[in-house]
Amino acid sequence: MAGNSIGQHFRVTTFGESHGIALGCIIDGCPPGLEITESDIQIDLDRRRPGTSRYTTQRREPDEVKILSGVFEGKTTGTSIGLVIENTDQRSKDYSEIKDKFRPGHADYTYHQKYGIRDYRGGGRSSARETAMRVAAGAVAKKYLKQEFGIEIRAYLAQMGDVSIDSVDWDEIENNAFFCPDVDKVEAFDQLIRDLKKQGDSIGAKLQVVATNVPVGLGEPVFDRLDADIAHALMSINAVKGVEIGDGFDVVSQKGSQHRDTLSPDGFGSNHAGGILGGISTGQDIVANIALKPTSSITVPGDTITKQGESTQLITKGRHDPCVGIRAVPIAEAMLAIVVMDHLLRHRGQNFGVHTDTPKI
Amino acid sequence: MAGNSIGQHFRVTTFGESHGIALGCIIDGCPPGLEITESDIQIDLDRRRPGTSRYTTQRREPDEVKILSGVFEGKTTGTSIGLVIENTDQRSKDYSEIKDKFRPGHADYTYHQKYGIRDYRGGGRSSARETAMRVAAGAVAKKYLKQEFGIEIRAYLAQMGDVSIDSVDWDEIENNAFFCPDVDKVEAFDQLIRDLKKQGDSIGAKLQVVATNVPVGLGEPVFDRLDADIAHALMSINAVKGVEIGDGFDVVSQKGSQHRDTLSPDGFGSNHAGGILGGISTGQDIVANIALKPTSSITVPGDTITKQGESTQLITKGRHDPCVGIRAVPIAEAMLAIVVMDHLLRHRGQNFGVHTDTPKI
Amino acid sequence: MAGNSIGQHFRVTTFGESHGIALGCIIDGCPPGLEITESDIQIDLDRRRPGTSRYTTQRREPDEVKILSGVFEGKTTGTSIGLVIENTDQRSKDYSEIKDKFRPGHADYTYHQKYGIRDYRGGGRSSARETAMRVAAGAVAKKYLKQEFGIEIRAYLAQMGDVSIDSVDWDEIENNAFFCPDVDKVEAFDQLIRDLKKQGDSIGAKLQVVATNVPVGLGEPVFDRLDADIAHALMSINAVKGVEIGDGFDVVSQKGSQHRDTLSPDGFGSNHAGGILGGISTGQDIVANIALKPTSSITVPGDTITKQGESTQLITKGRHDPCVGIRAVPIAEAMLAIVVMDHLLRHRGQNFGVHTDTPKI
Amino acid sequence: MAGNSIGQHFRVTTFGESHGIALGCIIDGCPPGLEITESDIQIDLDRRRPGTSRYTTQRREPDEVKILSGVFEGKTTGTSIGLVIENTDQRSKDYSEIKDKFRPGHADYTYHQKYGIRDYRGGGRSSARETAMRVAAGAVAKKYLKQEFGIEIRAYLAQMGDVSIDSVDWDEIENNAFFCPDVDKVEAFDQLIRDLKKQGDSIGAKLQVVATNVPVGLGEPVFDRLDADIAHALMSINAVKGVEIGDGFDVVSQKGSQHRDTLSPDGFGSNHAGGILGGISTGQDIVANIALKPTSSITVPGDTITKQGESTQLITKGRHDPCVGIRAVPIAEAMLAIVVMDHLLRHRGQNFGVHTDTPKI
Repeated sequence: MAGNSIGQHFRVTTFGESHGIALGCIIDGCPPGLEITESDIQIDLDRRRPGTSRYTTQRREPDEVKILSGVFEGKTTGTSIGLVIENTDQRSKDYSEIKDKFRPGHADYTYHQKYGIRDYRGGGRSSARETAMRVAAGAVAKKYLKQEFGIEIRAYLAQMGDVSIDSVDWDEIENNAFFCPDVDKVEAFDQLIRDLKKQGDSIGAKLQVVATNVPVGLGEPVFDRLDADIAHALMSINAVKGVEIGDGFDVVSQKGSQHRDTLSPDGFGSNHAGGILGGISTGQDIVANIALKPTSSITVPGDTITKQGESTQLITKGRHDPCVGIRAVPIAEAMLAIVVMDHLLRHRGQNFGVHTDTPKI
Repeated sequence: MAGNSIGQHFRVTTFGESHGIALGCIIDGCPPGLEITESDIQIDLDRRRPGTSRYTTQRREPDEVKILSGVFEGKTTGTSIGLVIENTDQRSKDYSEIKDKFRPGHADYTYHQKYGIRDYRGGGRSSARETAMRVAAGAVAKKYLKQEFGIEIRAYLAQMGDVSIDSVDWDEIENNAFFCPDVDKVEAFDQLIRDLKKQGDSIGAKLQVVATNVPVGLGEPVFDRLDADIAHALMSINAVKGVEIGDGFDVVSQKGSQHRDTLSPDGFGSNHAGGILGGISTGQDIVANIALKPTSSITVPGDTITKQGESTQLITKGRHDPCVGIRAVPIAEAMLAIVVMDHLLRHRGQNFGVHTDTPKI
Repeated sequence: MAGNSIGQHFRVTTFGESHGIALGCIIDGCPPGLEITESDIQIDLDRRRPGTSRYTTQRREPDEVKILSGVFEGKTTGTSIGLVIENTDQRSKDYSEIKDKFRPGHADYTYHQKYGIRDYRGGGRSSARETAMRVAAGAVAKKYLKQEFGIEIRAYLAQMGDVSIDSVDWDEIENNAFFCPDVDKVEAFDQLIRDLKKQGDSIGAKLQVVATNVPVGLGEPVFDRLDADIAHALMSINAVKGVEIGDGFDVVSQKGSQHRDTLSPDGFGSNHAGGILGGISTGQDIVANIALKPTSSITVPGDTITKQGESTQLITKGRHDPCVGIRAVPIAEAMLAIVVMDHLLRHRGQNFGVHTDTPKI
Repeated sequence: MAGNSIGQHFRVTTFGESHGIALGCIIDGCPPGLEITESDIQIDLDRRRPGTSRYTTQRREPDEVKILSGVFEGKTTGTSIGLVIENTDQRSKDYSEIKDKFRPGHADYTYHQKYGIRDYRGGGRSSARETAMRVAAGAVAKKYLKQEFGIEIRAYLAQMGDVSIDSVDWDEIENNAFFCPDVDKVEAFDQLIRDLKKQGDSIGAKLQVVATNVPVGLGEPVFDRLDADIAHALMSINAVKGVEIGDGFDVVSQKGSQHRDTLSPDGFGSNHAGGILGGISTGQDIVANIALKPTSSITVPGDTITKQGESTQLITKGRHDPCVGIRAVPIAEAMLAIVVMDHLLRHRGQNFGVHTDTPKI
């Protein structure tokens, strides 16, 4: 089974290459009756879109989404939803440099050895351009979750290079080009990007994604835990090299008496667990962190080999983000939304009518 | 779909509670012709087994595995393999303390709210006892991978509390009770555990898992990437709160010129990527880290609520590891083995006969 | 992915060979809170059991099922249910005849060529003995469907050789050894079997399976239609060569004006569709027919080849049913129950809260 | 999980309504390196296309397929293939008749009750128009199977109403508008259709689908048998009410000595099994029959109810085939091709390197 689908109940399958004719996806399993329009989806696509600020790649794509099916008179019908985005910025360019060389840090070598053939134009299927369809599908999930359950899914930039945020003001995030929730760090992020551009280099980033108002009970032991599925979804984003739930790697030096979240009739005393215990949501905020590597598309020359296996060097030209992590904010939100949506439908089918007298805390 | 299965091609489905009659699993998709005996599986079960040293829980179970099907005259037949371990240590005990109270940091509250019913004896299905079957299934995968491809999958304890290893000597790992590859740190780990036992407290841990000799080409873009599936499998282990591939969270402060692994006819210049690019194995070692939280089963009293939602306190008695991370070493190996095995079968079906002239580096 | 599982939400995975140590299955996705005991399951196992009458094979197995997990204090907990049946009748016998020859009409040749190895004892995994676990899992589904929705799933023998039933009296079915609903045909069936025993030959059969009280709305277009999933489940039963829904092959010579079922406020005017339109249940009875081939295990000698590819002859000795179709009655019920159960959970998750003012007819 | 996907390894997911903007599908898992163009796919689409003869509906659609991804420089790359067909014939028409009434024999009532909303234009998602994408995906599978294995998949009309064919000449099939392999029956089919048109009525049909050159070994016991998956795929075609493998329902009155196919060094003595034993292909032709009901879209008035549940009558106007079975010929081929392709990739991954000395017969 090839791997272009995610989710079991709310299932998203995507297609499309960086410089192909179009990108698209099918959302299978969206419940009927949800009001959805192209502009609902476009909002998140515009947040991800390249060329929106000087901090991100200058590739200019309107990324205009079209709904081809599954919506009738403004509402979902319960049948599969087809979405498509045409690639308008397919300007022919000279690919001779990357056609026969493997860009270091990219998927060129692995795709070539796996398939024996690859669409080298802009990375083909391995390009992060593919994530546009994740964002589109995620926007549908986000709308349903918000409307039916009041669940909100948001992310922000927590660190870039050695610059970390000190505080989180959710209202600031959309006010700057970095999705930065700490207004005092915007200038430092800006300076870092300017320096990198001069050096022709790039930098890693850390994001935090949070889902609020998720009901207790989502997630299926043993393997399809909510945290395991979140880890899968977030790690599947291009450039992600690490995923944490709650305290993440900090737990290594914590003691049990510190880490465990106590319960009281008024709720949990803390949220070290990140909203998940035994793979099942607790009703607290779900909190995850991801680490994104610095893009390998930089103008600093890199050693590599040719298709014939000979030693050579390569400089990546073209339009590239010095920090791909920034634009990953809406992507991370989309992936978390898809997982929560999937588990919500799943839980509902299996545990319909289950009742306890224990109050939800 | 409930979530007790992992893998698509090499598929493992498990059952069993901590204090039920038996644990078991079905391995579906093991290729025919593999020589396998109960002792092949027992080796890893014994490595995971509680009661093997004074550092782990004193629960004494022989954990003796029986092969019920799928093996004929010593070889796998290609049909489903049934494995079972009887729970012999079911001594009746007093559960009144945990029957109506939710242990903080455990899955008691979430299971109760999800299902409206739970087997409270020793945590029931949410107990780490379930991982015995992961280890059993992983042992089958490990044998196949080793024999057919020379792939080896090993793990070790890299950090416990604030004590980290400084060096890795693979030959040391089985020589001490901590799966510690640095002989100079064994005493420090030992002291840490002794101190924790006195305090009635517990501690977190960090493990590294490594697969060597994995061929280039395993992993399916876009969602079923090898790294995404590894993240899923490792995060599904009880107590795991973080997963890293290669440099993991260190990439946040790395530059592109530092991070990207150059290629030369003699191989890659480094392995910051942890053996995976674009979700596909590069042929280098696959390297992953996991963070395991400190167990919440400690004798320090903790605030919690009763089933009726009233405030109370709870002390966890009984036989518990001060560091559950130690015994997770064979479990982490098993999970990585299952994922690599699954992707190997998957890749083979899809890309049979694919050829490139590019030499493997 | 090997194929020992059925269902997505109510998922059954089986293992076990005819003459292995034990048969077993895991039921994953059974909702919590269902009261279930071993005797609930044993009832259907006893209906399927060989040796219950002189019309079926004289192999004597108690087929005693044990619940190993997933049930606590008499109720399902929502976690995976492990079931096992030990093979007690493993008397060693001489397999030299079938070890190196392929029995015509059996799966010997195909298993051998597929896997390169096979458990030849009694057909190994290809034996109908495997269906015991289908019946066990189906019994759990049947109990849930009956209790929560009043859904009943029953089957009967409609034809054997050239003898067909003329009427259906559901109360007669359990009164005779043929699951025959027409008391006037019992003697004719009896005579047919006696004649076949003398000839050392066997005969085919046709069964009808009916589900009553299934609510409108189960089934997912386009591929996972209720009828398509029923066809899959029924065709997966050993010896089945044909599946019909409603009028089945009779539709070939029907006109549209005859076939279509009219609607009125009092209900449908007929049920040519067999309770399914567009792949979705209508609320009428779901009606399916299956054709089962005559067993190839007969004492009439048959031409075949050896493992070396040389011409030879083979007589099947041992304990065999002259009509395997008879014992398939509880198996067919089990398979339909599993499919209806699976779709019920699936529908519920996806369409929770959907409402129409249109009355159900 | 909603049900718009089929296959595990060669996985096809479709979207699109009868009168929506476009139909489309994603093929996930097509091996790399297959030469494929839009005209390869168009051939089969044209065979299915309405309006090609006076015997089928006069709806005129060019049904022009576009490949949006997954093919580079004329060859598949191993990544997901996006296909789309725009609906050009969306002429606005008066739907007031069917908007608030349920057409008898159609999926209107079941969709409405399941989803609470439905796209009533031309049947929406329940229209057979959806099958265009099956044919498109099937064409890709057919090309691969033919080229790599010499496997051919063909179907024909075997019966319409009471008119059956007497002989099969594969070369005749494309020479007439009925996909009829018996030139002597073309006139009788023609007369039957003319009579039905006068009556405003419709008729059922029986098709036979055959796959030749399928290697021995495809199919996975126990549930994912090749025959079970074929039954699923064929029963999922609109209007299909019955599926047979090999002798199908004729086995009911066969004896074991008649039915079983003997083996000799020169091959099997007969093919009553239809090329499948124990769920695994034998290497003989795979033979399946399907029964298609007469369309319910006829001008004979039919009793039904309104959305409010009141009694009414309905006449289906518009462009409709008197026998939908005819155009199902390329659809049946496509479905069988998808199943064979899926099992081929599956078998290959699992049983790579398996060897027997037994010659294939």
